[in-house]
Amino acid sequence: MGRRPHPRNARGQRDAGARPRLYGRHAVLAALANPHRQFRKLFATPDALSALGPLPRRLAVQSGDAADLARLVPADAPHQGLVLEVEPLEGAFLEDLLASPDPARPLVVLDQVTDPMNVGAIIRSATAFGAAGLITQDRHAPSESGALARAAAGALETLPWVRVVNLARALEQVADAGFWRIGLDGSAAATLAQALPTGPVALVLGAEGEGMRQNTRAHLDMLARLPIRDAVESLNVSTAAAIALYATATRPMGPS
Amino acid sequence: MGRRPHPRNARGQRDAGARPRLYGRHAVLAALANPHRQFRKLFATPDALSALGPLPRRLAVQSGDAADLARLVPADAPHQGLVLEVEPLEGAFLEDLLASPDPARPLVVLDQVTDPMNVGAIIRSATAFGAAGLITQDRHAPSESGALARAAAGALETLPWVRVVNLARALEQVADAGFWRIGLDGSAAATLAQALPTGPVALVLGAEGEGMRQNTRAHLDMLARLPIRDAVESLNVSTAAAIALYATATRPMGPS
Repeated sequence: MGRRPHPRNARGQRDAGARPRLYGRHAVLAALANPHRQFRKLFATPDALSALGPLPRRLAVQSGDAADLARLVPADAPHQGLVLEVEPLEGAFLEDLLASPDPARPLVVLDQVTDPMNVGAIIRSATAFGAAGLITQDRHAPSESGALARAAAGALETLPWVRVVNLARALEQVADAGFWRIGLDGSAAATLAQALPTGPVALVLGAEGEGMRQNTRAHLDMLARLPIRDAVESLNVSTAAAIALYATATRPMGPS
Repeated sequence: MGRRPHPRNARGQRDAGARPRLYGRHAVLAALANPHRQFRKLFATPDALSALGPLPRRLAVQSGDAADLARLVPADAPHQGLVLEVEPLEGAFLEDLLASPDPARPLVVLDQVTDPMNVGAIIRSATAFGAAGLITQDRHAPSESGALARAAAGALETLPWVRVVNLARALEQVADAGFWRIGLDGSAAATLAQALPTGPVALVLGAEGEGMRQNTRAHLDMLARLPIRDAVESLNVSTAAAIALYATATRPMGPS
């Protein structure tokens, strides 16, 4: 299942100077296997190339040694002999994500989580626990990048990702579609296990440190915390998201 | 609660050339607050220094601008105006960790997890969920570093960390002390929720990709998996550890 191109989406406003370079075997193989991914060029070492198997037709390939490839990616990025320059994926549509709410397929909503590795890690965990998709604001969320794709370990190619202009407005639509909007907040009275309803849920997380913005909190049905000890201030946001997804996937559903 | 120095531990074999440089406000403040941490020198921007408050007596301080500090740490490390050169902490003792097994205080055992950011993230989550301590092998585990301490967000200073020469032997002692040794493995038949006993547990995780070594698996009481979908091969090891810790902390304990 790949994401499909469409002109209506905000991500259609491409910045020609910002073509992501995916690197590492996992991320590159996943991108090559995504029929909705448009490629610019594959840079590869001869060894890595020969291990790849059949490549998509008309993919431009340039051979180089490991040091050549290292110059294409951030310092110390573990490229494993593969760098794939791509076009960013077109985003998914909120309407599609909301069309058939399913208690087994939560949504993940991120409010200004800007760290690409955290967002990539959340995409990986969301896919692992069957999330229907990710919703971020178009601004104050990272764009596709090699670091994000690497942390997502291939899942960037398959998880529907909706970027919206106005997150509060999107949260209204999420509620109208029948999802419970649950915000993760360390100061909440209820634990997540206590708060989780049996219906479809949207898990909402803010940036580490700052948390959710006030206008985001105003568009939630409930706040819940993870039961952590005072010895740490908080969990990493991608850790908190993964635990919330696990708790949602394993919650007792009662008679249905 | 800090870790205490002791000559008997394997970490006492110091490599004089490998003094960790902690960076960033969170990691540096936590280290300064740890009475068992020995400092070499604090490098700080004037602004960061003035925001620190009272410093430990006899701490050598050198002022510099942000670019000076950036040269002391890896490229792009977010030092926030603070770099603290320290001695590594002395390790904790396995005997102390095993002295009073408590179902609410799991152990985390890592088999050749080498990525410092993953180990740091696991230290943070372990502390958040009340783990009694971390056990790694002395070889094939990362040493203290700025990246590890940053991912641990202060928890490196407080979580007892035992480094053992022989992990299989340590797992025997863990069992003898009354802990159930549960290995996380994606191919296990039972889910973690099904496998978790009510007694004290040691959660054992291997490196991403390779998993646990055969001799480690031979020293477990059971294997368990997290219920992830086929769409991803595995979870990040620090994500898996955090979920396992959450599941352990929230498991139904029944009548005791």
